[in-house]
Amino acid sequence: MNYDALVSRAGIALQSSAIRQMGTVAAQRPDLISFAPGYPSPATFAWDDYRAIAADVLSSVDPGALQYGPTRGFAPLLEVIRGIVERRGIRAAADEVLVTTGSQQGLDIVARVLVDPGDVVLVELPSYTGAIAAFRNAQTRLVGVRQQADGIDLEHLDATCQRERADGRRVKFLYVVPNFQNPTGLLISLEKRRRLLEWAASRDVLIVEDDPYCDLYFEGTTAASDTRPLKADDVDGLVVYLSSFSKTLAPAFRTSWMVAPAPLATRFETAKQSIDLCTSSLDQRMVYEACRRGVLDRQIPKLRQYYQRSCQVMEDALRRAFGDRLRWAHPRGGFFLWASFPEPVDTAALLRLATEHGVIYVAGGAFFVDGTGANTVRLSFSYVTEAQIVDGVARLAAAAAEEPALTTPASGLAGA
Amino acid sequence: MNYDALVSRAGIALQSSAIRQMGTVAAQRPDLISFAPGYPSPATFAWDDYRAIAADVLSSVDPGALQYGPTRGFAPLLEVIRGIVERRGIRAAADEVLVTTGSQQGLDIVARVLVDPGDVVLVELPSYTGAIAAFRNAQTRLVGVRQQADGIDLEHLDATCQRERADGRRVKFLYVVPNFQNPTGLLISLEKRRRLLEWAASRDVLIVEDDPYCDLYFEGTTAASDTRPLKADDVDGLVVYLSSFSKTLAPAFRTSWMVAPAPLATRFETAKQSIDLCTSSLDQRMVYEACRRGVLDRQIPKLRQYYQRSCQVMEDALRRAFGDRLRWAHPRGGFFLWASFPEPVDTAALLRLATEHGVIYVAGGAFFVDGTGANTVRLSFSYVTEAQIVDGVARLAAAAAEEPALTTPASGLAGA
Repeated sequence: MNYDALVSRAGIALQSSAIRQMGTVAAQRPDLISFAPGYPSPATFAWDDYRAIAADVLSSVDPGALQYGPTRGFAPLLEVIRGIVERRGIRAAADEVLVTTGSQQGLDIVARVLVDPGDVVLVELPSYTGAIAAFRNAQTRLVGVRQQADGIDLEHLDATCQRERADGRRVKFLYVVPNFQNPTGLLISLEKRRRLLEWAASRDVLIVEDDPYCDLYFEGTTAASDTRPLKADDVDGLVVYLSSFSKTLAPAFRTSWMVAPAPLATRFETAKQSIDLCTSSLDQRMVYEACRRGVLDRQIPKLRQYYQRSCQVMEDALRRAFGDRLRWAHPRGGFFLWASFPEPVDTAALLRLATEHGVIYVAGGAFFVDGTGANTVRLSFSYVTEAQIVDGVARLAAAAAEEPALTTPASGLAGA
Repeated sequence: MNYDALVSRAGIALQSSAIRQMGTVAAQRPDLISFAPGYPSPATFAWDDYRAIAADVLSSVDPGALQYGPTRGFAPLLEVIRGIVERRGIRAAADEVLVTTGSQQGLDIVARVLVDPGDVVLVELPSYTGAIAAFRNAQTRLVGVRQQADGIDLEHLDATCQRERADGRRVKFLYVVPNFQNPTGLLISLEKRRRLLEWAASRDVLIVEDDPYCDLYFEGTTAASDTRPLKADDVDGLVVYLSSFSKTLAPAFRTSWMVAPAPLATRFETAKQSIDLCTSSLDQRMVYEACRRGVLDRQIPKLRQYYQRSCQVMEDALRRAFGDRLRWAHPRGGFFLWASFPEPVDTAALLRLATEHGVIYVAGGAFFVDGTGANTVRLSFSYVTEAQIVDGVARLAAAAAEEPALTTPASGLAGA
């Protein structure tokens, strides 16, 4: 049988994730230090709490714990989520909230319900590869919008949107990660958030706001008020909001959520019915109990400190190893340090050297829908220990010392 | 914002599941007896085993238990699955197996990777609504093939396939549930399985074989050898095989699997990356341990007995209440009793009366892609207790007694 002839256009267009590919590399080399994955640190997981919760959830008092559940989500968890988003400034009605099997499912559902092949989705340059993949697999035309230090470039956004429309295309939505963006770690300023919402209203463009990191700001430089979601000020129903327990409780639970205008939430729920019927009932109860018992509230301040410290260690190590030959914006939260080598360094080529030296990262090009970014890297500091960060940066420097574009006499990197 | 104008063609075509709708009805009426859902009985869940397993899995010895995992699945579970299918006669190479978030995700992935809008998928008349929904949401042209007492009608299958091809359409696959089909409970005979594979080879048609119930045969009438999957004799790589732990361990875990020819399995895995990254790491470990510790092997014989007994209670109650005014084929396994009222009874209309009397089922029309089956019902005996079965059938009879088409003097149902 000729399997290729059977595959749909969407199936042919499928692209493997650069981040997941790095995961396969890492799995084969246990000695490798990986700055690739956006994984939370297992050192932060509340194992004892989860063990106690599992013992109660599996006591058989609630038979639903092992059964299929409602597609919308476990009702008490939906209520907890409404409380969580309310503390972020979002008033979500009951019919606006939907549990998803990870935010990845939320992105997939949004794309499937809204995008016809060839429709335009606007994304930041760079943007999260998981979103790019989900949108691309719906045969979306992905169009990039530049970023500035305070987030998306509104002039370029408007020009890009209007150009696409003038060309007769339908712009289905703008995808943004306003808080500690994946991959850049950038924060959209409050002033720019206000103007972005005004722009969306004036141009009648839906915004898909992906917000997994909002609680993980670094104290000192940043406060909760700096992370106020766009959705909190969405008086016109222009924002679909996604967030998750994956970065704060644990990714294993695959429990995330969306807040969307009710007419869209209903369609998203119907789509989810035929996609996976429901998110794991056990996982949803684990998460619900972790919220109800205060585990989440206790975790978050610890996580802020933990990741801020990891970030600091990485910045110090990079500064020592690379001096000013590697540039990055100081992260104010989240999991990622986004750095640029001097051109013409190609970080995809450097990755081969780095792998030989026992360290990997995600080459930045994967985050750009316009083919640029060849000199950039995403370095995740979240998953690795402090010792691994120090060791991994040393390995990266050793790899860079073998990179011709960095070993010219002027670069000063040969001995780094 | 005009949300309807934003929605894709696929989004507009989304249809809500008749079974899930019944779930919503049931949730609002706790006194209701529901013969609607294909849920396993919570009385059969191995609560004590899962509690012990969770305590160990969450001991923090394996940090992966709370982390993201490989898209293919938890490697030790993939090995266990290879062993399970081997006992069913299927030799699956490592690169042919993929864990899915429920078989519903498997169906969705198959449709997305293989079907372009307008492509043909052949389904049995009747067929599983969850599959119909997944295929329909990929904008498939669904074409029905009749069934006989020993399963799909091969002559009608061939004629239908050839007619669609003569009309210039691409037939992407045939979807079948050979063991205790949902909804009819029918078993394809071994002789017909052999001929079906020959047909698929001669016509070069892929078969998607959905097999959640194979272990749940009723002893006395049926043996394991009667349930041998098509995939076991698939020498030509024509079969994609789906199965699940949802009906034997617990649906909450959302842990199922596919066995597919490697070129397809690779594409399915890539699709899953952008659909949900991975199935819950915790759930996969719960299932893995349940297999490793013998929970699954201990459960299965108990489940056979339990559901056979439930089926017997339902058949006895129906016979007493309806005599020969309701016809059904004696189930030899699975969760469902598929019954027909005399025409012109409309079971969708009867459902309104039944709901008033405190019992629900799935009206059979939802399982037919050709609009027929208005006089049929799917009665699930798996989820309800014996007392509920007896009570529910009495309520159904009381409802039927108010149905004009059944209360003519000749029907004899008025006093049932």
